[in-house]
Amino acid sequence: MSETFVGIDVGGTNVKIGLFDAELRLLSKTSVTTDADMGPEVVIDKMAQTVKDLLAEADLSLTDIVAIGIGTPGPARYSEGVIIRSTNMPKFKNVPICKMLNERLGAPVVFDNDANVACWGEYVVGAGKGVEDMVFFTLGTGIGGGVVSSGELVHGCDENAAELGHMIIYPNGRNCNCGQKGCVEAYASADSTARRATEALEDGAESSLAKVLDEKGRITSKDVYEHLAAGDELAKEITDGTAEALAITCINMLHCTEPRRIVFTGGMIAAGDLLLNRIRHFFNQHIWTIKKEDKIEICVATLGEDTGIIGAGALARHKYGQ
Amino acid sequence: MSETFVGIDVGGTNVKIGLFDAELRLLSKTSVTTDADMGPEVVIDKMAQTVKDLLAEADLSLTDIVAIGIGTPGPARYSEGVIIRSTNMPKFKNVPICKMLNERLGAPVVFDNDANVACWGEYVVGAGKGVEDMVFFTLGTGIGGGVVSSGELVHGCDENAAELGHMIIYPNGRNCNCGQKGCVEAYASADSTARRATEALEDGAESSLAKVLDEKGRITSKDVYEHLAAGDELAKEITDGTAEALAITCINMLHCTEPRRIVFTGGMIAAGDLLLNRIRHFFNQHIWTIKKEDKIEICVATLGEDTGIIGAGALARHKYGQ
Repeated sequence: MSETFVGIDVGGTNVKIGLFDAELRLLSKTSVTTDADMGPEVVIDKMAQTVKDLLAEADLSLTDIVAIGIGTPGPARYSEGVIIRSTNMPKFKNVPICKMLNERLGAPVVFDNDANVACWGEYVVGAGKGVEDMVFFTLGTGIGGGVVSSGELVHGCDENAAELGHMIIYPNGRNCNCGQKGCVEAYASADSTARRATEALEDGAESSLAKVLDEKGRITSKDVYEHLAAGDELAKEITDGTAEALAITCINMLHCTEPRRIVFTGGMIAAGDLLLNRIRHFFNQHIWTIKKEDKIEICVATLGEDTGIIGAGALARHKYGQ
Repeated sequence: MSETFVGIDVGGTNVKIGLFDAELRLLSKTSVTTDADMGPEVVIDKMAQTVKDLLAEADLSLTDIVAIGIGTPGPARYSEGVIIRSTNMPKFKNVPICKMLNERLGAPVVFDNDANVACWGEYVVGAGKGVEDMVFFTLGTGIGGGVVSSGELVHGCDENAAELGHMIIYPNGRNCNCGQKGCVEAYASADSTARRATEALEDGAESSLAKVLDEKGRITSKDVYEHLAAGDELAKEITDGTAEALAITCINMLHCTEPRRIVFTGGMIAAGDLLLNRIRHFFNQHIWTIKKEDKIEICVATLGEDTGIIGAGALARHKYGQ
């Protein structure tokens, strides 16, 4: 018997599945369409069949699986293994996904939300490797988060932790989709960064981005970071707004769970050191002076597109491995 | 043999010591002067002798002690058992307090900072009883904090967690003693509350507090809350500033570690429901609308002056009890 862990990353469009050995080395992986409109029975049958196919190709069998990890967006009752509902999979309502997978594959199933799973992957084998306390931000449409404290994910009393994007940093500031004002998400997500640039152009700001808005009808955060690299002043100003909001949030997390490392992922990785250095600049500008905070590291994620399956496999090993 | 735990609360002026049974019932307690200027050897000898005296009075002996818990202000290397230095005890520099107590009393010693110890006491037998996730604020000269996540204190990578008073809620706002601007401590500590009232009076605000300032030369937060109860408008405005700052911090903690209960202690307890209800009001005003947050409880601490010894005893039991 070879100790094998399965990692499953469920998205609205694709399901990614990976097999890992006891050292979390990726043995094989695949991606299949989710076909969410076929409903949970069909989707989960397909997941199970895909796992079996991967096992067969790797000369492994069901009995080699020690445990399965799975990540989905919320809301869900993770510890009970139930998806409550899903924006991208409308037919998934109160689906006992862990039980259904367990019935088909035999092994125990560990379940968490996609941001926590990605956070855990980075923590175990990515940018967080070697520390015990980490904070993780995903900068996309919104801002997701994860917190590892003393080597364990923080889940909170109703398993909603960590909604770091909705920490308020500018009370009565910009409207956030959540109904609050001044959330870090309203300034620093990929979408908010693009929106702030668009608003500035509509207000008459001069910038090389104006041409992009004219030609494409919209601006993305990637555009902002590209024009930043090319020296555009507005792009610099907008990026500074993003960086300062993130820096203040980093400071607040330092004073809250005291991470050794803060890891960012999402579209902004395209900006790389240009953005990271601005975050570090504002961090040093706003941080206290009673004590040097030179040991905290602000960096980008390293796992790339496999984060979801690696994190899920790592969670399975964390709970059921030796 | 009776399973006994010792809790020690070290302050600059007094050392409080309590004996507890396995159910954390207080068997006996005492308070002795710290005599910090005599240096660590003498102070720790006295602590040990006081424990022995308490044991003798309770018909117990050294062998009945399962473990000893001790709390002091930082900075310290808690897990190594060493006080680095102490504002109130200038002769305490790199003092291996755990080793020194263990040599004198035989039992293992658990060590943490005073805010975490108080937090743990409230968590185990006070206002946090029955929940797994709690956040704790002490509102005094500054604002101290503690976070319990899934039944464990959050310590952070360098054992400085949780410095909740220095979370920035108003970037570029009021100066904080720590060198940051806009910390919650700069608005809502007992001292900052009093200071904001004083500044308003100096700026010409009308208030019944003016007479207090004239007569006593200073205002305390207790004065503010007393005049609030009597209907003074300025006292209401100042209290609202305190309550709103605390409410935003509560929201940020909800989105971070998702506590079921947030517990306040310190001078502001004198204000009781007057202040708590304003915190709840601003919490409901600023909180998101995508989901009801009606399960989070905002309340005051219940243990009173024995918090320190109870928390220390509870930490000792947590680590070494059955």
